[in-house]
Amino acid sequence: MSVEDALACICAEIKPVDEDAAATARARHDQLLKPPGSLGRLEELGAWLAAVAGKCPPPLPERPAVLVCAGDHGVVSRGISAWPSEVTAVMVGEFCADRAAVNALARTAGASVSVLDVGVGVELPAHPLLKRSKVRAGAADLAAGPAMSREEAARAVVCGVDLAEQLVANGADMLIGGDMGIGNTTPAACLIAAFTGHPAEEVTGPGAGGDAAAVAHKAEVVRAALALHAPDSADGIGTLAAVGGLEHAAIAGFILGAAREQVPLILDGVSTVAAALVARALSPAALGYAVAGHRSTEPGASAALEALGLDPLLELGMRLGEATGGVLAAPIVRAAAAALTEMATFEEAGITA
Amino acid sequence: MSVEDALACICAEIKPVDEDAAATARARHDQLLKPPGSLGRLEELGAWLAAVAGKCPPPLPERPAVLVCAGDHGVVSRGISAWPSEVTAVMVGEFCADRAAVNALARTAGASVSVLDVGVGVELPAHPLLKRSKVRAGAADLAAGPAMSREEAARAVVCGVDLAEQLVANGADMLIGGDMGIGNTTPAACLIAAFTGHPAEEVTGPGAGGDAAAVAHKAEVVRAALALHAPDSADGIGTLAAVGGLEHAAIAGFILGAAREQVPLILDGVSTVAAALVARALSPAALGYAVAGHRSTEPGASAALEALGLDPLLELGMRLGEATGGVLAAPIVRAAAAALTEMATFEEAGITA
Repeated sequence: MSVEDALACICAEIKPVDEDAAATARARHDQLLKPPGSLGRLEELGAWLAAVAGKCPPPLPERPAVLVCAGDHGVVSRGISAWPSEVTAVMVGEFCADRAAVNALARTAGASVSVLDVGVGVELPAHPLLKRSKVRAGAADLAAGPAMSREEAARAVVCGVDLAEQLVANGADMLIGGDMGIGNTTPAACLIAAFTGHPAEEVTGPGAGGDAAAVAHKAEVVRAALALHAPDSADGIGTLAAVGGLEHAAIAGFILGAAREQVPLILDGVSTVAAALVARALSPAALGYAVAGHRSTEPGASAALEALGLDPLLELGMRLGEATGGVLAAPIVRAAAAALTEMATFEEAGITA
Repeated sequence: MSVEDALACICAEIKPVDEDAAATARARHDQLLKPPGSLGRLEELGAWLAAVAGKCPPPLPERPAVLVCAGDHGVVSRGISAWPSEVTAVMVGEFCADRAAVNALARTAGASVSVLDVGVGVELPAHPLLKRSKVRAGAADLAAGPAMSREEAARAVVCGVDLAEQLVANGADMLIGGDMGIGNTTPAACLIAAFTGHPAEEVTGPGAGGDAAAVAHKAEVVRAALALHAPDSADGIGTLAAVGGLEHAAIAGFILGAAREQVPLILDGVSTVAAALVARALSPAALGYAVAGHRSTEPGASAALEALGLDPLLELGMRLGEATGGVLAAPIVRAAAAALTEMATFEEAGITA
């Protein structure tokens, strides 16, 4: 069986979320000790968690797990990033050393952090937190040709599926996807433009830094890449292979894996929402298992969120990636489960409205 | 010494937050391993925590403590609430029984919950979580005369100061104020109108429930009360006594107490932001120690937040009170401290930009 066929089998195993359980959760919320609707988004989140788990009340997510998917990008040679590609590997080392932003935030949220090398340009030393499944040593320059082959794209997606399965097998009950890859907001912008139909300049931003001229140059690279490949948005793997990144592929797989495992997944910033568009192209049902953690300031993030129909939980002006925005939202998701599970009803309190 | 004089002494002890520490935090953030500014609001929050603590990095808030201040309201007799006053005491019992919304949310945030009876209409049984400091058994009908005397208002404020001091003495390192009091969005609207100058109809909402006619009636009660008392917004205690509630007074004191103790405080919904306007009238410096946890859907909350110059961390469509919105923001504040304290610098990672 080809990797693409294997991936199709995985996608076929993804069941839609359980709308009956969501309805039960909504009905339960109306009985809980508060004016109906007064917990706002927390009530919707509770219903979503019930739909994901297929039961009401849903289990309290106690062991969230972050996976930061890392890859490099040949398109960096076109001057689209303020940082050199070497920084990707340095940052992977810092994640493993437990001293990057996501480590600090994950610790306060009680979340574990793992790192996946699915496409870093250099060989990385072994480390207990590092999953080494390099599909290729960096994506090729997407402005000159495909970023990777279809087979590589599918393999990178399957890596993400596998990691979701491994983390859940090890006890994770909520997954949070994140990215690290110098230059990766350029393929993210390409993916978002390809899947949403927005023109390049509407979905291209400064990423990790850059002035208006730098953003204009980057948008031109995105526009040219889209013109070169004319990706078919109905073909998720084809689009990913043409203009994506290996970490975007792995995150898409991580989303599919969470859905197959029926655990809730929190999206982070622009790279993860771009990956969510890929995941949706491969399995529309998978997105039922995902919630948007935050709204990145990167313009493509808002375009993708709108296309996905997702309203982010947080809007804190963040644009770092690494899953930092997703992990910040984890306590809110946990609180939503707790409200639905632990509150008394009006009847239990002896109040009749 | 009169209670008002004692309160003036307390206010005189409040020092402005330390702007030098905030500047040090901002400079540190620019050295940390991420593009400058990419953690958005988290960076500002870190600087605020440094300013509150008077040092950088600030301590990580590990032991947040919620205080739910409870009181009743004579104005309920005018039909401004969908719920009878008896529910206030029932809810206090539910907080003590650890099964209300704030209990569930506080547990997930690692926060303790205490309840202050500063003005519940009936006698309440002793309970380890209940602080019994009743100043009077419910506020009088503010539409007929003053809600309480100046001396009662000042005593209720001092109760809140004392509770902040007690909680900090017992190890709390972050305080979260909340309210319970059937009918209390009416005095909250009065306070907000009095301190911001907004007309009654702009700051009056449905509270715990009510259709357009109910809201219009409530706004008319608010308008009439303001016309009756013509409160002087420069006179915090006078305004509070005329149109406030005992729990608003206690929360104002809780804010002052947090400031005197130099610990960060998270505001909740409309009752707490109304109380913050009172606290600011008593001590403008005190508000430097407060952050807005969320934006309640109650219209007065937005008017008060704007007047206070506070931008809330969360906007989740919540309107329950009890400190539920404030406690949801606690993990974000903690994460901000962790980012500032635990991240490596570029220099430590060997990266030169």
